[in-house]
Amino acid sequence: MTEPKTNGHTVIGTRPRRHDAVDKVTGRALYGVDARMPNMLHGRVLRSPHAHARILSIDTSRAEALPGVRAVITAKDLPDPADVMLESNEQGSAPLRYKVLNMLARDRVLYHGHAVAAVAATDAHTAKLALDLIDVRYELLPAVLDGREAMREGAPLLLPELRTERGGAFGDRPTNVASHITYAEGDVERGFAAADLIVEREFTTATVHQGYIEPHAATASWGANGELVIECASQGHFVIRDELADILQWPPSKIRIVPLEIGGGFGGKTTVWLEPHAAVLSRKSGRPVKVTMDRAEVLMGTGPAAGSYERVKIGVTTAGRITALECEIMLEAGAFPSSPIDPAAICAVGLYDLENFRVDGYDVVVNKPKTTAYRAPGAPQSTFAVESVVDEVCERLRMDPIEFRLLNAAREGSLRADGTRFRRIGMIECLEAARASDHWMTPLVQTKGVKRGRGVGAGHWINTSGQATVNARLDADGTVLLLEGSVDIGGTRTAIAMQLAEAIGIPAADVHPFIPDTSSVVHSRLTGGSRTAFVTGLAAYEAGRELQRMMLDGLTRLWGAEARRVAGGGFAGPERQVSFKDAARLLAAARIECNAVVTLKAPEAGPAYAINIADVEVDEETGKTRVIRYTAVQDVGKSIYPPHVEGQIHGGTAQGIGWALNEGYWYDAEGHLRNATLLDYRMPTALDLPMIETIVVEVPNPKHPYGVRGVGEIPIVPPLATIANAIHDAVGVRMADLPITPSRLAASLAERDAGRTVGAGR
Amino acid sequence: MTEPKTNGHTVIGTRPRRHDAVDKVTGRALYGVDARMPNMLHGRVLRSPHAHARILSIDTSRAEALPGVRAVITAKDLPDPADVMLESNEQGSAPLRYKVLNMLARDRVLYHGHAVAAVAATDAHTAKLALDLIDVRYELLPAVLDGREAMREGAPLLLPELRTERGGAFGDRPTNVASHITYAEGDVERGFAAADLIVEREFTTATVHQGYIEPHAATASWGANGELVIECASQGHFVIRDELADILQWPPSKIRIVPLEIGGGFGGKTTVWLEPHAAVLSRKSGRPVKVTMDRAEVLMGTGPAAGSYERVKIGVTTAGRITALECEIMLEAGAFPSSPIDPAAICAVGLYDLENFRVDGYDVVVNKPKTTAYRAPGAPQSTFAVESVVDEVCERLRMDPIEFRLLNAAREGSLRADGTRFRRIGMIECLEAARASDHWMTPLVQTKGVKRGRGVGAGHWINTSGQATVNARLDADGTVLLLEGSVDIGGTRTAIAMQLAEAIGIPAADVHPFIPDTSSVVHSRLTGGSRTAFVTGLAAYEAGRELQRMMLDGLTRLWGAEARRVAGGGFAGPERQVSFKDAARLLAAARIECNAVVTLKAPEAGPAYAINIADVEVDEETGKTRVIRYTAVQDVGKSIYPPHVEGQIHGGTAQGIGWALNEGYWYDAEGHLRNATLLDYRMPTALDLPMIETIVVEVPNPKHPYGVRGVGEIPIVPPLATIANAIHDAVGVRMADLPITPSRLAASLAERDAGRTVGAGR
Repeated sequence: MTEPKTNGHTVIGTRPRRHDAVDKVTGRALYGVDARMPNMLHGRVLRSPHAHARILSIDTSRAEALPGVRAVITAKDLPDPADVMLESNEQGSAPLRYKVLNMLARDRVLYHGHAVAAVAATDAHTAKLALDLIDVRYELLPAVLDGREAMREGAPLLLPELRTERGGAFGDRPTNVASHITYAEGDVERGFAAADLIVEREFTTATVHQGYIEPHAATASWGANGELVIECASQGHFVIRDELADILQWPPSKIRIVPLEIGGGFGGKTTVWLEPHAAVLSRKSGRPVKVTMDRAEVLMGTGPAAGSYERVKIGVTTAGRITALECEIMLEAGAFPSSPIDPAAICAVGLYDLENFRVDGYDVVVNKPKTTAYRAPGAPQSTFAVESVVDEVCERLRMDPIEFRLLNAAREGSLRADGTRFRRIGMIECLEAARASDHWMTPLVQTKGVKRGRGVGAGHWINTSGQATVNARLDADGTVLLLEGSVDIGGTRTAIAMQLAEAIGIPAADVHPFIPDTSSVVHSRLTGGSRTAFVTGLAAYEAGRELQRMMLDGLTRLWGAEARRVAGGGFAGPERQVSFKDAARLLAAARIECNAVVTLKAPEAGPAYAINIADVEVDEETGKTRVIRYTAVQDVGKSIYPPHVEGQIHGGTAQGIGWALNEGYWYDAEGHLRNATLLDYRMPTALDLPMIETIVVEVPNPKHPYGVRGVGEIPIVPPLATIANAIHDAVGVRMADLPITPSRLAASLAERDAGRTVGAGR
Repeated sequence: MTEPKTNGHTVIGTRPRRHDAVDKVTGRALYGVDARMPNMLHGRVLRSPHAHARILSIDTSRAEALPGVRAVITAKDLPDPADVMLESNEQGSAPLRYKVLNMLARDRVLYHGHAVAAVAATDAHTAKLALDLIDVRYELLPAVLDGREAMREGAPLLLPELRTERGGAFGDRPTNVASHITYAEGDVERGFAAADLIVEREFTTATVHQGYIEPHAATASWGANGELVIECASQGHFVIRDELADILQWPPSKIRIVPLEIGGGFGGKTTVWLEPHAAVLSRKSGRPVKVTMDRAEVLMGTGPAAGSYERVKIGVTTAGRITALECEIMLEAGAFPSSPIDPAAICAVGLYDLENFRVDGYDVVVNKPKTTAYRAPGAPQSTFAVESVVDEVCERLRMDPIEFRLLNAAREGSLRADGTRFRRIGMIECLEAARASDHWMTPLVQTKGVKRGRGVGAGHWINTSGQATVNARLDADGTVLLLEGSVDIGGTRTAIAMQLAEAIGIPAADVHPFIPDTSSVVHSRLTGGSRTAFVTGLAAYEAGRELQRMMLDGLTRLWGAEARRVAGGGFAGPERQVSFKDAARLLAAARIECNAVVTLKAPEAGPAYAINIADVEVDEETGKTRVIRYTAVQDVGKSIYPPHVEGQIHGGTAQGIGWALNEGYWYDAEGHLRNATLLDYRMPTALDLPMIETIVVEVPNPKHPYGVRGVGEIPIVPPLATIANAIHDAVGVRMADLPITPSRLAASLAERDAGRTVGAGR
């Protein structure tokens, strides 16, 4: 690894046209639903109308008899989960047999929307009609939808084989607790004993959806020779391939996934959803099948983020030093293990320089959809709790919230959850940038009729990594074709291409990024964990250097004399000098191929930190909160393509504000999801938000030649507490339960006015 | 290069199921016409009704006004040929500006079927209707359709800028002779002076079509960002890319060609036909466009094989040694240069061990479609002439035609056309195998009412090569994904996969061959020249060895001790032994990627030789010839996949018999093609042919580790003379003009019976 270079760049940090822009604005880019294969059938999925029920029988005969229906599948058409090996290929994913059960319910349905059967017919309308002709007899079972209730003795049990008990792995009592993890360092009791002030509070957050615009679609063709081709949008076509191989018990070498453009994923498209249905329907019908979801299915039948409960206890000295932090986190996994309880716990103790901490995490199954990753999975929930308590600590110590955080900020050498120490990180720089910001320097002006307040919140995200691969090929016209193993979910084509361009001294527009199918490039992990611009970018950088070596070798051969690089991307020998483009032409004319294939692994994409400042105004009569100014400060390591870095911060912040103020799954007493439309599931729109100001801090990641850190996930972490803290500043109530809807806030304001205390509990 | 290995193979020479079989027999394989893109338009091409005419005007306004029409293009929408660089990228192809003019006529139409305009509309029917609304005003010009007439002083001139004259390059007189080549060694005059017998004859062959079953189709999407994607079937997706780049003057790096399955090519799909129309219609309409041809367009508007004239003069001693061979060949290039005059000339003098030879070749433009390659291009024509004269020589010397050929056969050390010497070749072994064959050993039995005869003929083909590329990737299940840069036109997937499988000791079924688009693999030359099983196979062999090295390295790393290969494809360390599959699993679990990328060049695929024996019976009343027994002997170097080797021999022989007996373009006096349907253009069917017996001779090619030579083209070379010689044996007339239709043969028989001589001239 060379030394980090953060100055003198000609490509990095500039704003060329993104490579996918024109195709996307002109409608030529192909998304999941655009796939079409000759002779294709259309598939739809039948979903459970109940939150919890035993399946007594499924009669598909009437559906099969409907003209136009070509195949009907139920769980019987998938491998028996009992025969399926327990663990899947992809790190951190749920045990495989639960994936199989989640694809199509076998003996019981475990949530409203759980897939029960699927149909392929000659047109989508017929497929939908056929769903009504599938007769499923259910025996209703009691459901549990709240994680804390699910943990209680006597709660309805979802998975009888789950024998894990609180505090002990795989004990002998049935339970809904799928796992319990603990991270602890130092001596928490001694830490609290040394504290002058201890604040302990409880919190909850709702089940929320990633809210990607594009509903799921998968188009499969399973040949009679056993070769399965699927065209779909995902965050990782190799993940789709490997999961399908596991679920279908089919060799990955016989599966090829063609990646299509993705209309948003945010973590929710890191796993299969409709791909197994499309595949098995294709196998059964002998024809290609496209299966699609409507919006209600997306909300009911895919993987939202976990609803949660947190208890946080922080001890501080009067001087403002944290002496101990204790935290309990419960994440609702949904109907099957597991939730992102691990990163939730890690991030709860990653913000501050702590000597004594203990965090316990519980992964609990409830009768809701199986959760999936959602942008910095687990961190928004736990950070909301920690940063709310920190705000109260600051209030009670009468300390400036930025100064308090500067005093306690995690820094190089601080303990991490796993007992290791941080390398170079940027929390202090973010706090300093926030303190110096126009937003922070500008006093908040009150206005008539509403109450205004300002809040601060911090966030940390771990940024994972793993294997990445690129293939860089010099073309005769001096451009470089760059095959990337990572699908592009938010602009990484350009961020990766720019790193190659910088490495070899050509313009970004002269790199043609291309994401081929799983057969045409070496295995790459998914696009997620905020790893891609970092690690696939690193691979592109290495490929650029390799390409340069190949060009130098080729020119040396052609010239019969040592070639060397010159400024501006060109090359020189003892007697001549050529531009990069001329060198490419020379090499092509001599049919000297320059083709660099790089596969590498990197452990983590550099820990990320962010500080948010929010100004809100609250209408005390209605309880309606409006965000009037918002600043997001973030250490990005190195901003490769500033418009995308800013875009990630804008998008993540908007989503975090949605968690804070608007979004949440509403279940009725029977466990039916009642707001499965985008009218009722209320995501913030552009009209709801101010322009989000971004302050990009660059503390180079020592593990990357340009200093890149993961960027995409952390923006969602700070807004939850930032908004809640601003509301407290405005109206003096601490909102411990998200979302802070007008009705909830109005109720809390009424309690405030009645002199009652305000605490946790939905 | 290792020593040739021809024994002890476990994969090579066996008959596993071909990898594409199931998809093809179940209808899942996608051919040119199957391509579909969202929002796709349908395009059709308007073609000239005249053989030669000046275009006075083209008015597209009525077509453009037709509802549903989205774009109309004429030559104005292509780059001006004057601005286009003269030479294209692909070796041996016609000057580029002629390709542009052939795509869409500019000032003049030069043949019946010459493309004049093209239309894209919302459906194919509307597109076809719109063609009738394009008003083209023509001024008729005199046409010349026969190459010898075109060479005469005063003939109508096709290309006024052609200044080449007979015997001198680019002289100052206008001409239809595009080029004149000469190969000469020794002293022909002295050779003829030493001869005891000299036979000199003239011959002609007709314009014939490759007769592939699949008509052309191309589907293009030209994005507003300038990126052009085309799905089409061809014999070389990189050729299509490079030619498009030249014709459209567009960077190849912005063009991606997705190869589809091909329903036959035989040389005719080695160049663009509809791809430029589809591309430009897409650019103009802003939507994807699929353009297709009907059968008449295929026959009128694509590139058949050249009609020809030959004069051959051979001198021999009474002992049967050839003392000199002189040959003049004229190939009709069609409306634009160039024909395969070079290989025609080379093959004319490649059959025999000649000390004195001279061959002159003329490439002549006529008002017919621009010719393209057709299986061993040029060799059938010139070999027909040489082998007819050799047969007459044998007859007059009363020598056995196989013994005569054995005496004179080209062998290691014989002179080649270019003055170099042959390495190890197999003509003698083929002759010996023919002599020992059941066919040759079995006397021909005459029967009542018809005349039976037996003929012999030889053939030689040069077998070219060039750059090839593969990418072999080990999968976790112990199978190997094999990306091949060569499209599969006749089963090379399997022949290439088997060479990799043999190299690493796994079954052929455990190799998954896959042909990705031009962006996903390194540049590879086309599938043609009989190079692919040889050179891409060689690349696969090298990739196998590289993969093995990678696996050995990986296992050595895992085991901390030197790993080595054991029999059966497995590996062993000092303490353990694992199968190939277990090794793959171990390496995958450790995420050690084994990915071998090989790009190599090879000069030629090993010269090929073949001997054919035919028994025919002639109905003297009708002139109808029936082939009653046919044996094809061929040196294949090493038969990798015997079913395909035999299939190539069957197919090529059938086509050669078609040249001999049935096929030919029939033009009327105005130069209109009058048999542009498969009813009137009469190819032999299974009902017309006996089972073709194949005798596979294996004289290893010293330039390939398994001894592979090119196989696919040479089978078409010997049948023309073999059939003509058999007819002579049956009825005593030498048919010098192909095809030997019943009417022609009946006329010759009448001349025979009238005691007149029989010679050349249609």
